[in-house]
Amino acid sequence: MRDFSLSTAALALNTATLGHNMPGAGAGWSAEQTLDACAQRGIGGIVFWRPEIGTRAAQIGQYAQQVGVKVVGLCRAPFLTGPLSFQDSGKIKDDFRKSIDETSLLGADVLTIVVGGVEAGTKGVHESLKYVTERVADVLDYAASNGVRLALEPLHPMYGGDRSCLTTTRDALDICDALASAWLGVAIDVYHVWWDTDLPRQLRRAQGRIFGFHLCDWLAHTTDFLLDRGMMGDGVADIKSLRACVESAGYDGFCEVEVFSAQNWWKRDPADVLDIMVERFRTVC
Amino acid sequence: MRDFSLSTAALALNTATLGHNMPGAGAGWSAEQTLDACAQRGIGGIVFWRPEIGTRAAQIGQYAQQVGVKVVGLCRAPFLTGPLSFQDSGKIKDDFRKSIDETSLLGADVLTIVVGGVEAGTKGVHESLKYVTERVADVLDYAASNGVRLALEPLHPMYGGDRSCLTTTRDALDICDALASAWLGVAIDVYHVWWDTDLPRQLRRAQGRIFGFHLCDWLAHTTDFLLDRGMMGDGVADIKSLRACVESAGYDGFCEVEVFSAQNWWKRDPADVLDIMVERFRTVC
Repeated sequence: MRDFSLSTAALALNTATLGHNMPGAGAGWSAEQTLDACAQRGIGGIVFWRPEIGTRAAQIGQYAQQVGVKVVGLCRAPFLTGPLSFQDSGKIKDDFRKSIDETSLLGADVLTIVVGGVEAGTKGVHESLKYVTERVADVLDYAASNGVRLALEPLHPMYGGDRSCLTTTRDALDICDALASAWLGVAIDVYHVWWDTDLPRQLRRAQGRIFGFHLCDWLAHTTDFLLDRGMMGDGVADIKSLRACVESAGYDGFCEVEVFSAQNWWKRDPADVLDIMVERFRTVC
Repeated sequence: MRDFSLSTAALALNTATLGHNMPGAGAGWSAEQTLDACAQRGIGGIVFWRPEIGTRAAQIGQYAQQVGVKVVGLCRAPFLTGPLSFQDSGKIKDDFRKSIDETSLLGADVLTIVVGGVEAGTKGVHESLKYVTERVADVLDYAASNGVRLALEPLHPMYGGDRSCLTTTRDALDICDALASAWLGVAIDVYHVWWDTDLPRQLRRAQGRIFGFHLCDWLAHTTDFLLDRGMMGDGVADIKSLRACVESAGYDGFCEVEVFSAQNWWKRDPADVLDIMVERFRTVC
């Protein structure tokens, strides 16, 4: 297992950790200012969200390269199913390709897929997962031709209804097995999987197919479905054990800190948040 | 699979569905009035919560027998682990035995166990599940000597931190395997397990060990961790398929409706809630 106590080269900031800190909101940092703040702290990588990038993907990607911060990935493809999707397979396909284009222009390797919830008119997750499989299959060649790897992210089962009918690493790997492409893998997020005692077994199956590893913590008394994640060390997830499993499965990439936290971390000075994130990465991850 | 369209003999009311409807709250129904309301509608069973019973377990049990409503079970044993438990193994053991006594006095067969969250000073669920196993083992003989079966209820993973480190049917059956007692089984609640694609396989393992089956629905856009359950038919759970799996595993007992719903069902006239519950049971379950 890698020793993170002395180096933050493998640490990546998911900009969600700084909340809606974009021009006109929060501390008002531009993508470039965020990149500078990462570079100053030796944070090796960054993951952006599409609204922060807009039409400036190539420009931001170039700036990241200049300051020596790797753009690890982009969040995220459109919902493929469920009530929050475009609910129009043509629109979904177009936006899916657009998100692949943006990932490529940024110089990032990985596009994260949050699949979407239960498809209208169906019950349970079975049929929705079939749609997900079909819609991912549709874009695999396009992703490959753009050099973009797709990471299916199983979300916590509390999102099963509206955000992700894909709730376990097991289900995500079943889709990977079905589509058998080197361009399709999984993203493992501590927040979504910490409770799953089947995870060690599934991660052994995942050998070579883990395209992302996301850090945060699960607060014992969490109060919000979306915006109450904990910083590493503040919750009950066994982060070190999870990382050991992920690394045993061959993962040697970035560890991406993604803390949605409207009432705590997003209210703080983003410079302080980054400093604490670095310290926690070195000590509790 | 049983046909529920014509009979409600297998339907049980979990009184949580009527909210805090006890003397002094809600419609102010006593346990006896609730039993009358069930009897009038041909609802075959009932499950009470301990605060409604107090020291009147035997008396309420006798009344239930008089009006021909079976007391199916009691909610619930004390939390065995985690931040909401007594955090004192002696107190936990005493109250666990007391809850067994109350179940027996009520004339109910089954005591439901919600195990509690992650034990203080530990990370992940591994160690907590060991404590759970030990603490259940401790009372098994006592339960057997009182004729009370214990039902481990896996809760939705969103409760993993504070209410239940036991989040999957798989983990619950692993504990049952470890303790190998005819007095220990599982309770399967649609709300907690609807997302789990591993469930059909686990329920095949559960043959003869399902001690309870709980009905409600998962609302696609649920807004509260505790008190926003849906009535059957209003959400995205595939209730009929779940019931088919449960019955294939040999379960032929009551189907217990348990809808915690502070903003909707608890605000309605409890007589109407019961009428709608009966109609949904016949048509969508």
